[in-house]
Amino acid sequence: MRQHAGELVIETPGAGLHDFTGRVAAFVRESGIRNGLLTLFLRHTSASLVVQENADPDVLADLQDFFRRIAPEGARYRHDAEGPDDMPAHIRAALTQTQLSIPVRDGRMTLGTWQGIYLFEHRARPHHRSVAAHIIGE
Amino acid sequence: MRQHAGELVIETPGAGLHDFTGRVAAFVRESGIRNGLLTLFLRHTSASLVVQENADPDVLADLQDFFRRIAPEGARYRHDAEGPDDMPAHIRAALTQTQLSIPVRDGRMTLGTWQGIYLFEHRARPHHRSVAAHIIGE
Amino acid sequence: MRQHAGELVIETPGAGLHDFTGRVAAFVRESGIRNGLLTLFLRHTSASLVVQENADPDVLADLQDFFRRIAPEGARYRHDAEGPDDMPAHIRAALTQTQLSIPVRDGRMTLGTWQGIYLFEHRARPHHRSVAAHIIGE
Repeated sequence: MRQHAGELVIETPGAGLHDFTGRVAAFVRESGIRNGLLTLFLRHTSASLVVQENADPDVLADLQDFFRRIAPEGARYRHDAEGPDDMPAHIRAALTQTQLSIPVRDGRMTLGTWQGIYLFEHRARPHHRSVAAHIIGE
Repeated sequence: MRQHAGELVIETPGAGLHDFTGRVAAFVRESGIRNGLLTLFLRHTSASLVVQENADPDVLADLQDFFRRIAPEGARYRHDAEGPDDMPAHIRAALTQTQLSIPVRDGRMTLGTWQGIYLFEHRARPHHRSVAAHIIGE
Repeated sequence: MRQHAGELVIETPGAGLHDFTGRVAAFVRESGIRNGLLTLFLRHTSASLVVQENADPDVLADLQDFFRRIAPEGARYRHDAEGPDDMPAHIRAALTQTQLSIPVRDGRMTLGTWQGIYLFEHRARPHHRSVAAHIIGE
């Protein structure tokens, strides 16, 4: 039994869902661990992680609409020093995930056929986002 | 230290919260691992996992009402090829969990007294749902 | 490779976000494990875990406002035996997290600069909350 750790830096072009499944699969491969547990932890509070359908891009657009509507920029927030997109970003992050763990079998994540791993950027402008990655197994 | 992996297939009768705590407890038992970490990963994007109260079924009915109201079928979505219940299902899944990890002590999950593990089916029709299960420990 | 388990009991003074990052860091330190994976599991369904910004307390106040608005006490619920704050608590818990895993490197959690670990108490009155803690690594 052994473990491997690293960091994935994702450059987001602005608000939206960015598929980085390939980056995670590469991390799993380079670990050499064939069976075990992979964990991703996003080191930010105005972006988040979600597993969603990677077949129809309309799903991603509808998801973004929903989160825009439920936590809109126009609402009145105390916290607005960093701009109108800041507090909605924290709320949308609280409603989704900061962390994700996925079992690994035979060198591959046990994702379903249509599942992709997304970094959900909630800020309007491009950001550097850091994801701590960890895998344990054999 | 060792690990054990498997797959739990859950047949859902349609939309609603389905308690499968007993199935997970059986997986922990059959692993023979007494102390460690259990992880469940749902391999679908239109259903989700939640830990909720298993004492009063009204809690589950109220939860379902809430998610129906917050992500209704009647809203206008781009993604509707699979029916009016499809996009609300993706939204409700994004708002809850795809994955769950629970420490195991003395052969049992460290669930609280009133906690059950639920598969939250968001589609109207019955589905086969696959949960990747993993436990590591000793 | 080895593991360490324990329980953190958090006394909440009533509804709100309570930072217990220091308690978790102490658990990691006392485990003696320098590199590995930490998991926290909250053993209750009317409170939850969130990772949020620890710099500006306004973020926490705005978050609380949001969850009060989205799952208000005034709505009509079937489940109300324990008071008007009970069912909103379950909904707010379902929308956030029951569990959290964080990679540990060089004896420290890989939290971002502004990230704190919060117990989000959703009930109005003070409660004892139990968090199962687990760390595996070396």
